[in-house]
Amino acid sequence: MKVRIGSEVREYQTVWMEEDVVCMIDQTKLPFEFSIYRAKNVEEVAEAIRMMKVRGAPAIGVAACYGLAQAALQNRHLPSKELKAFLSKVAAHLLSTRPTAVDMQNMVTRVLGMCEDLNSSDEVAQAALCEARKIAQENLEACRRIGELGSSLIPKNAKVMVHCNPGALGTVDYGTALSIVRFAHAQGKNIFVYATETRPWLQGRLTSWELTQEGIPHCLIVDSAAGYYLQRREVDAVLVGADRILPNGDVVNKIGTYMLAVTAYENGVPFIVAAPTTTFASSSSSVKVEERSSEEITHVKGYNPELGTITHIKIHPNVNARNPSFDLTPSKYVTFMVTEKGIFKPNEIKREL
Amino acid sequence: MKVRIGSEVREYQTVWMEEDVVCMIDQTKLPFEFSIYRAKNVEEVAEAIRMMKVRGAPAIGVAACYGLAQAALQNRHLPSKELKAFLSKVAAHLLSTRPTAVDMQNMVTRVLGMCEDLNSSDEVAQAALCEARKIAQENLEACRRIGELGSSLIPKNAKVMVHCNPGALGTVDYGTALSIVRFAHAQGKNIFVYATETRPWLQGRLTSWELTQEGIPHCLIVDSAAGYYLQRREVDAVLVGADRILPNGDVVNKIGTYMLAVTAYENGVPFIVAAPTTTFASSSSSVKVEERSSEEITHVKGYNPELGTITHIKIHPNVNARNPSFDLTPSKYVTFMVTEKGIFKPNEIKREL
Repeated sequence: MKVRIGSEVREYQTVWMEEDVVCMIDQTKLPFEFSIYRAKNVEEVAEAIRMMKVRGAPAIGVAACYGLAQAALQNRHLPSKELKAFLSKVAAHLLSTRPTAVDMQNMVTRVLGMCEDLNSSDEVAQAALCEARKIAQENLEACRRIGELGSSLIPKNAKVMVHCNPGALGTVDYGTALSIVRFAHAQGKNIFVYATETRPWLQGRLTSWELTQEGIPHCLIVDSAAGYYLQRREVDAVLVGADRILPNGDVVNKIGTYMLAVTAYENGVPFIVAAPTTTFASSSSSVKVEERSSEEITHVKGYNPELGTITHIKIHPNVNARNPSFDLTPSKYVTFMVTEKGIFKPNEIKREL
Repeated sequence: MKVRIGSEVREYQTVWMEEDVVCMIDQTKLPFEFSIYRAKNVEEVAEAIRMMKVRGAPAIGVAACYGLAQAALQNRHLPSKELKAFLSKVAAHLLSTRPTAVDMQNMVTRVLGMCEDLNSSDEVAQAALCEARKIAQENLEACRRIGELGSSLIPKNAKVMVHCNPGALGTVDYGTALSIVRFAHAQGKNIFVYATETRPWLQGRLTSWELTQEGIPHCLIVDSAAGYYLQRREVDAVLVGADRILPNGDVVNKIGTYMLAVTAYENGVPFIVAAPTTTFASSSSSVKVEERSSEEITHVKGYNPELGTITHIKIHPNVNARNPSFDLTPSKYVTFMVTEKGIFKPNEIKREL
């Protein structure tokens, strides 16, 4: 993705490896500050995922794979059997950091699978690294393909609405829903984007930052204002990513997706889910909706009466909050699913994928 | 309403007059700090309304009436004809501060009407003050009655969802939707409240503060999480106030009301609008949806990389935002309207009110 630093434009991916260090754009600092976080061991990778330095279903999957490769490289002095047992433990720990997105499960399982039958620790480490890099490259290519394919759904002069950050920052590059926007923009289609803020983490600000880097016209709106623009038919399509797509076509995605889909449906606005096939779950069972800390809601904006400044404190002593991070959108509200393998209706995915 | 200050519990109204000073609970300081703002002249009243020190359709209507009475009292040295012309100008200025809510129009028109045929400035001032006080008292009684009547719609052990702050703070006392919650709670019905945050002003924090004063169990949720609880049928009723109810039963209310109503409807959850009859507009024409400053979205949470502190700055240099403050909920999504004159279905209001 393009990153403008002063008058310079540089190309970055969201997450990558340098030697045995897992590098990532620190998304907790954006959009205020662009900086790179370097995780020196897999514990730091796990913590970075949990703290959302890296976020987005495909991006955390790739970060976890790199973490696994890093753990293998740094522990190849162990006998191969012990190393593989250690990697299994590490994988379970990584998976526990963000339980809802399925990409991490699918990707990490692939890395472990490649190591399974190897008998030397050097081979295990090499295979883990090689598979992690391959998964990252495949994600990049899948996202590019999603953009190419999906842009055919976007008419000229379209106004689209995007929830959360289904962007380059949520994948290795390009993004899912935002890849479609990038390609449509590059085709000269004169696209305008409504980006929902996406409380409590405000990933809409990441979307705004990304679109600014690319020079794509857009505005931020509060999540609640989506209905206002949908009702007035000032939106030609709603585009979202996904954290987990079930075999029946139901979509688990960032909290708020469900209300957006229902309201788009009510107003006849196409609702498009864009995701690589790594986001498709083989089974409907065990969807765990992560409920994150209530502090994300109870502490967001503080006020210090002594200093007269806004700071990060509890809004009042007795406040409670509930903070589910994802919801489930039944397939009936989804118009199209865009994957690297093609564009499908939700009821076609069982047959096609 | 109850306000706990240390170990003491005091009774407050949201807005009142002391001599020729318009006093109000400063809602821009809540929930962090409880303080009273004293507007010494009508310009300060208008600014307080614009800056949302006082907010909520009925409360700003009453504040404007007090401001008008204050202007009359402080200018009764003028000849009566000039005084009345001046009051008309003041009224127009007050109405321009928040154009969507209709209570202010209805109430201010009443005050001006009482002054119309009077020939002495003392009489004008006295009539304005008297009418303003009467309107305030009527609002208080209407809200109490709304609570009494509406609580019949709330079953025992109900979990209700409330959007924005339709509370005592948005009226003279009791609130509209929250008056229903107060009465149901007082009847021992074991009520639990989901309070939506309500970006960008986060009036849900005011709701949380009010409910805490009253000891009513509740939690804050992000606006986007409403659908999550509605879909799981963990909500027995959605309760909202209104800024303007049209003759056909359509409801203009805080941004986000429309999506909530659509989603409640989709899940068979009753959607209840509570409002005094001052919120009913005589005509459907000229609904102006206020669009407030984009800074409410682009500046809410800042980050100072030098100090490492969160502060109030622009999130990034090129961000834009759109900020409509209200939306329109078609009557088909509304189950009941609760007024001081009774509980109606939306299609009954033309006949009954």
